[in-house]
Amino acid sequence: MAVNLPPPDPASLHPVRGVDLAVARAGIKKPGRKDVLVMRLAAGATVAGVFTKNRFCAAPVTLAKKHLRNSVRALVINTGNANAGTGSDGLRRALAVCVATGKSVGCKTAEVLPFSTGVIMEPLPADKIIAGLAATEPCDWASAAEAIMTTDTVAKAFSKKIKLSGGEATVTGIAKGAGMIKPDMATMLGFVATDAKVGRSALQGMLRRASDKSFNSITVDGDTSTNDSFMLIATGAGVAVAAKKDLALLEAAITQVATQLAQAIIRDGEGATKFITVRVEGGRSVADCRKVAYAIGHSPLVKTAFFASDPNLGRILAAVGYAGVKFSKLSLFLDDVRVATAEGRHPAYREEQGAAVLKKPEFTVRVDLHAGKAKATLWTCDFSYDYVKINAEYRT
Amino acid sequence: MAVNLPPPDPASLHPVRGVDLAVARAGIKKPGRKDVLVMRLAAGATVAGVFTKNRFCAAPVTLAKKHLRNSVRALVINTGNANAGTGSDGLRRALAVCVATGKSVGCKTAEVLPFSTGVIMEPLPADKIIAGLAATEPCDWASAAEAIMTTDTVAKAFSKKIKLSGGEATVTGIAKGAGMIKPDMATMLGFVATDAKVGRSALQGMLRRASDKSFNSITVDGDTSTNDSFMLIATGAGVAVAAKKDLALLEAAITQVATQLAQAIIRDGEGATKFITVRVEGGRSVADCRKVAYAIGHSPLVKTAFFASDPNLGRILAAVGYAGVKFSKLSLFLDDVRVATAEGRHPAYREEQGAAVLKKPEFTVRVDLHAGKAKATLWTCDFSYDYVKINAEYRT
Repeated sequence: MAVNLPPPDPASLHPVRGVDLAVARAGIKKPGRKDVLVMRLAAGATVAGVFTKNRFCAAPVTLAKKHLRNSVRALVINTGNANAGTGSDGLRRALAVCVATGKSVGCKTAEVLPFSTGVIMEPLPADKIIAGLAATEPCDWASAAEAIMTTDTVAKAFSKKIKLSGGEATVTGIAKGAGMIKPDMATMLGFVATDAKVGRSALQGMLRRASDKSFNSITVDGDTSTNDSFMLIATGAGVAVAAKKDLALLEAAITQVATQLAQAIIRDGEGATKFITVRVEGGRSVADCRKVAYAIGHSPLVKTAFFASDPNLGRILAAVGYAGVKFSKLSLFLDDVRVATAEGRHPAYREEQGAAVLKKPEFTVRVDLHAGKAKATLWTCDFSYDYVKINAEYRT
Repeated sequence: MAVNLPPPDPASLHPVRGVDLAVARAGIKKPGRKDVLVMRLAAGATVAGVFTKNRFCAAPVTLAKKHLRNSVRALVINTGNANAGTGSDGLRRALAVCVATGKSVGCKTAEVLPFSTGVIMEPLPADKIIAGLAATEPCDWASAAEAIMTTDTVAKAFSKKIKLSGGEATVTGIAKGAGMIKPDMATMLGFVATDAKVGRSALQGMLRRASDKSFNSITVDGDTSTNDSFMLIATGAGVAVAAKKDLALLEAAITQVATQLAQAIIRDGEGATKFITVRVEGGRSVADCRKVAYAIGHSPLVKTAFFASDPNLGRILAAVGYAGVKFSKLSLFLDDVRVATAEGRHPAYREEQGAAVLKKPEFTVRVDLHAGKAKATLWTCDFSYDYVKINAEYRT
């Protein structure tokens, strides 16, 4: 059960001029389900990408990085098979899918970016995908979001319109992911598109900053996937953006959509029953704040206490203590309740207050290190029986 | 259910000349159970210690470190309350326990080392402990091991006799711990004593090397406790050890007992159903090998797959891939079965082989990085429903 995450309302997802979407039912893992998505881009579109730092990055990641040096005319995404840990044979199969996609949409093989998600170390059924590509159907963004799901229980899509000096621009994005989530540069798969016209290097800068604030600030289980990719597309079919103010407005909209998508991944985290914001303030550096936030967000003891709605302050403090960060004073809050200092429990704190916060499906753990001005925010979920169940029964 | 860990046979645990053991029933958490242990040492005993690096180290850890500068005549250990995250009030309470222990055994307050384990951030019931100290009963090592248990399901104690040039020496040790286990210098609590006479600096060196190979090579959940302490006691009541060969023999025996204790903690890991050895070879450095081993040992995805006896090679490779270590070739083995290379599944591997290994209660995951000659071994357990149950219901 995802935490406060309704399925996307198709009417809320604005089409992006310059992006044509189509799905296929290739029968990769289950017959009949949508499992291949093709995004065809208008000529002149710029694309920026960030990818997993896992050394076993998947074959499609290797190929997408290479093809990103060219102009990009199409993205092809399959679910059901990650084509990771598959060596040179995996690269050949990913390339075969690019060849077929290029033929299908009318562009060069090198203008196609491939993405895969699903089981690791199984040969990609490229033949099925290629057969599927011959029978795609046009679709909308809601349907596209469904086509890339794996253990996700809810599709993830958000959209926004903004007014720029040259006219209105649209930003629409989709993502997938629920487990093996501690993105290192990006999440499992995230795609955000705008019809604005933005230069390649400006776009790459926006992507880097937006991903740091969104996909690089979430964790479900601390496992960095082999296939993480976050792509930002500017089709240029709409208004041109060059003025500083417009660039800032566009970046804010992109960051907002990316953050909604990243948070949706946590809300739909495997077995999640709580959506938790970990906010660390007063650090000497952002890196310090992130270390403390991840120590809390990764601790199985803290996460099981959250699941039990147990305001177990000791476990949170222990995690802060082993994060490897220097501080002398400390304040710990659950929502607005001041619960502890470095000296121990706050004198005014009553356990009922903490328990009341933790019973909510969403709350904030705030740590003030009193050591500087840096801060960082991390979104995470609790650790439940269902996390074990899902991962003992599902084969990534 | 602990994995292949019978309770200690009292007859197998050799008394250590120069160590007198006594327990008390102080009613710290539950009335009637043994919850305080006093170890009284002969005059002239040398003691070496390693302690947690958690910045919220508990009050008794702070005091034990300070008192370790003096001669040591007694150790006092309570379970049921960790006296951690308790600030200056916690220090006062720990000191009061040292005062009472000194009076009880006839030594100075500064010659007493205090240790606590149990719930974090609750005030230590020093009055109860002090009252208990007035009514201790002599006990053996098996009973001492029971007195320091918290979520442990089985007491942990091992013993060994060795022949040195000057005569026979005894090494006997106890430990406790089942969760919040990723010792950083030492486990929750471990105490190993020998009757041999060893100088302080030689003893500290032995302790450091032995703890690296034992308590610093295990993980249950990646959570480093606030109270980790591992103490090595040489009472000097037995044979003097000075010759290089004797020192090496003694160190080997100490390392063996410490390793048995550390492995016992994993066998009794919270919710553990499997005991897993992770062996990483062919690394450029021991640090690299340890990074890879801990990435595997901490991955919730790998640990839930082990619980399910699912030879999910992709999850293991993904963890190796995000460990942050450079390599180009790789071999992965489950026991003696070669299962994968960097190119993917080994051609001769059949999934039934991997499944057969993972069904066993004990197996080895071996990774060869083919990059150098360094190696490291880590012991860990799987991640089951019961881990969540224990930690959602128990208050550390």
